[in-house]
Amino acid sequence: MNVIPAEVITPAVLIDVDVLDRNIERMAGNMRGRGLQLRPHVKTHKTLEIARKQLAAGALGITVATIGEAEVFAADGVKDIFIAFPLWVEAPHAERLRALTAKCRLAVGVDSAESATAMGRQLGVDAGSVEVLIEVDSGHHRSGVLPDEVVDVAEAAAAAGLSVQGVFTFPGHSYKPGMPTGAASNENEALGLAATALTSAGFEVTTISGGSTPTALIDGETVATELRPGVYVFGDAQQLELERCSWDDIALSVAATVVSRHEARGGNVRRVVLDAGSKILGSDRPDWATGYGRLPEYPEAKVTALSEHHATVVWPDSSELPPLGTRLRVIPNHVCLTMNLVDQVIVVHGGAVAERWTVAARGRNN
Amino acid sequence: MNVIPAEVITPAVLIDVDVLDRNIERMAGNMRGRGLQLRPHVKTHKTLEIARKQLAAGALGITVATIGEAEVFAADGVKDIFIAFPLWVEAPHAERLRALTAKCRLAVGVDSAESATAMGRQLGVDAGSVEVLIEVDSGHHRSGVLPDEVVDVAEAAAAAGLSVQGVFTFPGHSYKPGMPTGAASNENEALGLAATALTSAGFEVTTISGGSTPTALIDGETVATELRPGVYVFGDAQQLELERCSWDDIALSVAATVVSRHEARGGNVRRVVLDAGSKILGSDRPDWATGYGRLPEYPEAKVTALSEHHATVVWPDSSELPPLGTRLRVIPNHVCLTMNLVDQVIVVHGGAVAERWTVAARGRNN
Repeated sequence: MNVIPAEVITPAVLIDVDVLDRNIERMAGNMRGRGLQLRPHVKTHKTLEIARKQLAAGALGITVATIGEAEVFAADGVKDIFIAFPLWVEAPHAERLRALTAKCRLAVGVDSAESATAMGRQLGVDAGSVEVLIEVDSGHHRSGVLPDEVVDVAEAAAAAGLSVQGVFTFPGHSYKPGMPTGAASNENEALGLAATALTSAGFEVTTISGGSTPTALIDGETVATELRPGVYVFGDAQQLELERCSWDDIALSVAATVVSRHEARGGNVRRVVLDAGSKILGSDRPDWATGYGRLPEYPEAKVTALSEHHATVVWPDSSELPPLGTRLRVIPNHVCLTMNLVDQVIVVHGGAVAERWTVAARGRNN
Repeated sequence: MNVIPAEVITPAVLIDVDVLDRNIERMAGNMRGRGLQLRPHVKTHKTLEIARKQLAAGALGITVATIGEAEVFAADGVKDIFIAFPLWVEAPHAERLRALTAKCRLAVGVDSAESATAMGRQLGVDAGSVEVLIEVDSGHHRSGVLPDEVVDVAEAAAAAGLSVQGVFTFPGHSYKPGMPTGAASNENEALGLAATALTSAGFEVTTISGGSTPTALIDGETVATELRPGVYVFGDAQQLELERCSWDDIALSVAATVVSRHEARGGNVRRVVLDAGSKILGSDRPDWATGYGRLPEYPEAKVTALSEHHATVVWPDSSELPPLGTRLRVIPNHVCLTMNLVDQVIVVHGGAVAERWTVAARGRNN
């Protein structure tokens, strides 16, 4: 996709549906070939049409981050949902979880005996209809317990009446150059230790859930039964710079226009300004990234700063500044933020606008 | 406001209406006292109720970043709107600008002869009903021309039939510790040079527009006729760390819950995880910031990392980790991003929920 259809008003999110379909099939095919279940994280796209494609390609179910996201997808008929988040459940959450269990198989994350106990207490007689996976910290050091703490949490969950199904982890430390392979190995080790500990304590472990886009396609034996990558459907500048995807694998871009243009003068650098800022690209920028996104048609250009509605792009000396009014595409660093910033995306096929999809679960933060 | 009302489901945006009202009146009073007009930037809040308060307190009009934002506020009856952005105008933009001029006095930014010419061509016979302000670069080095280039742009705008009213700048380089005073001085100098150049070239300069929250309240003579601060209505962690507001001046916070809690173990730091991540706090983090936001009740705690739905908070050794389920508030680094991430905010008065306001212009990126 090298063309922005004329009817698109910038800035706007474009999705190349052919690349999207290829990405969905590549991951699904890899999982099938390795005998793994795929449970894609739909917080990346928050879009019903894309979840339907993932399920049609063989995904077992979906992963979400919030109860609100689960509600949107359950209402669309998704029958197997895992809320991969250590929920703290009060009465209003319990009511919503109960309503979800009437519509789908539901699993949630827990990473402490206290939160398992609180969840069981709030769910009361319905606790058994909610499955739980114990979250393991495999090196990301965010939420999750260490593998030797899993049994305590699982026992509290079981005592609270919840249905303990296994363990999960998110190897978020894979998001650094050179890290994906090591993180995948940490993940496998932590899941293995945790699952073994649970089994030894008498639990029947049916689900061992791992995965992130940087690690999911790394070959090799894994103890996991399912993986939960999210970003793979689109790719983004982070995945590109981590060498987890190529330019041709990137299905999502932000259409932008050159609105300001400056040759070097008075100590200022040679730059253009685009009309796409942090309110559409998102402002995630890990310290190893080359900038706040990448321009596929100008791979040497550097997005050095984002304001809310401006991207400052320092232009390579080797090429001419594009004229004012030039329309070009920006690949955001972190595509999950971009999808959460728009109500609608423009689906492109064969260089033309094919459809517009609503980002149905946008903003469902709780 | 130290209490999160019980009915609030976290994460959610809370606005303390008493602090909001005080912030609005403080800025309005300062502007009145200095004989300056106030044209607040409403991209900060995107909310009709707040713009109405600003206008009732004496604001001349409002500033917006996009045509879409202008449309939302014009539909609510705002009669004087400046789109402080160097628009590149094609036919669809011209049509929307025409519709706006039927509803309100409208000014837009330009920073090149080419974009002024394009705008005039697209507007045709209606060009004269759109006022333009030439954007000057006062040191931020984003958009805007140097003061000695202003006349060329103004002449092109006049030749294109547009109504040249003056100049504007955004001293964005004020967003650094120690910089606000110097940036205010750069701003004043650049605006003065640019306005003088325009006047010498025969233009009648009626508007000299500057301002940012870090510089707006800096005393001293200014050549500006109006200022456009935005963030002052709420304050945020950036303004706090720049010493442009105090804790008591912060009107907006994100209510969050402790969902994961970890004493130091196995090399991991002592931390809690909150259920508020980059999808509600925004991920802006300048290199001088202490973290990704601040906790007013725990000022020593450091928000060291944000995922989309998790904030990792490294806890000070001097105090106990809060129990799981604790509800606490986070002040985002950059409040404009937070407002753009929610459809609704919860207005708190006297510790209770008073109202809910819709973020009417959320997501109006074009």
